[in-house]
Amino acid sequence: MDLWITFLGTAASVPSRARGTSATFVARGGARLLIDCGEGTQRQFLRSGLGLADVDAIFITHLHGDHVLGLPGLVKTYALRGRTKPLHIYGPAGLNRFLGWVEPLMRTNAFRVVAHEVKPGQDAHRLDGARVEAFATEHGVPSVGWALVEDDRPGAFDADAARALGVTPGPDFGVLQRGGTLEVGDRVVSPADVMGPPRRGRRVLFTGDTQPCAQTVLAAEGADVLVHEATFLAADAGRARETRHSTAAEAAEVAARAGVRTLVLTHLSGRYPPRDVKREAQGAFPEVLVPRDFDQLEVPFPERGQAALRRHGDAPPAGAAVAPGGDPERDGEE
Amino acid sequence: MDLWITFLGTAASVPSRARGTSATFVARGGARLLIDCGEGTQRQFLRSGLGLADVDAIFITHLHGDHVLGLPGLVKTYALRGRTKPLHIYGPAGLNRFLGWVEPLMRTNAFRVVAHEVKPGQDAHRLDGARVEAFATEHGVPSVGWALVEDDRPGAFDADAARALGVTPGPDFGVLQRGGTLEVGDRVVSPADVMGPPRRGRRVLFTGDTQPCAQTVLAAEGADVLVHEATFLAADAGRARETRHSTAAEAAEVAARAGVRTLVLTHLSGRYPPRDVKREAQGAFPEVLVPRDFDQLEVPFPERGQAALRRHGDAPPAGAAVAPGGDPERDGEE
Repeated sequence: MDLWITFLGTAASVPSRARGTSATFVARGGARLLIDCGEGTQRQFLRSGLGLADVDAIFITHLHGDHVLGLPGLVKTYALRGRTKPLHIYGPAGLNRFLGWVEPLMRTNAFRVVAHEVKPGQDAHRLDGARVEAFATEHGVPSVGWALVEDDRPGAFDADAARALGVTPGPDFGVLQRGGTLEVGDRVVSPADVMGPPRRGRRVLFTGDTQPCAQTVLAAEGADVLVHEATFLAADAGRARETRHSTAAEAAEVAARAGVRTLVLTHLSGRYPPRDVKREAQGAFPEVLVPRDFDQLEVPFPERGQAALRRHGDAPPAGAAVAPGGDPERDGEE
Repeated sequence: MDLWITFLGTAASVPSRARGTSATFVARGGARLLIDCGEGTQRQFLRSGLGLADVDAIFITHLHGDHVLGLPGLVKTYALRGRTKPLHIYGPAGLNRFLGWVEPLMRTNAFRVVAHEVKPGQDAHRLDGARVEAFATEHGVPSVGWALVEDDRPGAFDADAARALGVTPGPDFGVLQRGGTLEVGDRVVSPADVMGPPRRGRRVLFTGDTQPCAQTVLAAEGADVLVHEATFLAADAGRARETRHSTAAEAAEVAARAGVRTLVLTHLSGRYPPRDVKREAQGAFPEVLVPRDFDQLEVPFPERGQAALRRHGDAPPAGAAVAPGGDPERDGEE
């Protein structure tokens, strides 16, 4: 099952010419999820080439403006475009109050907005063969990170073992792979005879804004991808502590302690060239990616390799063809 | 005194790839004004090449999301950038309630946000030699348009008449032009002897969202520039009435009845190619401009010609050098 992450907004606090405020789009199979929804997110969808994806659910990390101010506009636009399916919005304490404030700006009878205030550790959203759960972060206000956790997958099929037990390659292999048993001569061959131990599904975490914290290390243990904020460099560590943000070095330290495969840094301040952010992190953890807006990360199953970044503009965006509701833009030259 | 209008967001309701939601920046001499502040306005400033102008005042036409959702982010960004001077926000009934909702997202001790709810006909904001006043519009919710009205200017100086009265060209001409009197031989020459009648200052109007209405015609009488919404084409006039918007033909009819010099159409729907919007309007009024985002309109004094559009990208934006607070963006390649 394909798993693509599109970075729609990678700026810290204030947008820049090149980077929008926080928003990350996750496409997994047919599911469409959005992590945070900063001001301008609906337009970032259009500019990404994906079109305005009709997301199933939005996961808010905390209620600061640069993570939520795109919500009312996105909801209103969905309504104007005739959306009918409910939109689930998950977030920490304070979500309902925020939605109450902006409700008059996004009032719609077209579809239901279903708000869920969750606590860290709580399963929030169920997908086909996966779930999204909240984990604790530390940002001085109610906040959570979000973990996309796939269910365990069946173990690897050992074709040699199956053949040795007399199973004929072909449909009978499929029976065993799907959990069925076979009679072969005078014995019964069961999946346990030919399948390895269950394999862990993919795990991708999004911290939102946080200072480095033990709970993130715990939640991220062995994750395929950790998307961690890196608002500051070590030279400004004091400022990072005051504002409950992380430095690039601290984010890398979290990744190293958790033993993740790939660290992705986002929530970048205009103060620093992104290459400096990457270099600082690589001092503590080797596998670091620093996406630009609209870059896409493909997260393969672990046995198929490491997550890899596709730069925006290199190719049509993944999911462009399948995202429901393409860009209706037909703004010609006047 | 220079008067430049930069169109920062010309889309109706929903942004497109090319057009942001409503925002128009007005630079007159040293004054910096913003008409409406749709989602993404702070970033449109950066993308325009102007940098994030430290506007003196923001004028809201009505409290729909696509005209106000950029306010909290802009205010927050001003605070993060160390603004200290007060920000005046003017708008119709409902402004205070909206600002109350979003206040927790833009809380700042750095500077004061001063809200002014105004009624049509009320003078709102005083500039050097000009004022901004509200006029009535019709959009089904409390709404106003905004008129920038310059004070009358002194009449034209008649150098021949002055010479005939014995005034020596040079400093004495200046004395008369500035309203002083001169003794020339045995008589007193006063400005009335050598100056034509006072000349009207420039007048630029911004309707915001409205159906065509008599109050706009009245307010716009003889204006230099009327920036009018044109959300629909005549083929969808029924839909325009339902939603209290204008068709391009109706906007042109308003311009023709008011006898303005130049009509500028904005709040464009992605439904129509902008060239069709322009063509429809020109059926009723010849001088029509349809800006793209970031285009700039120079409004000269009437005796110096007609307002003219400078396309974005043709030259450095007017005001880029003088706008306080340039773009601090230094986002290099990673």
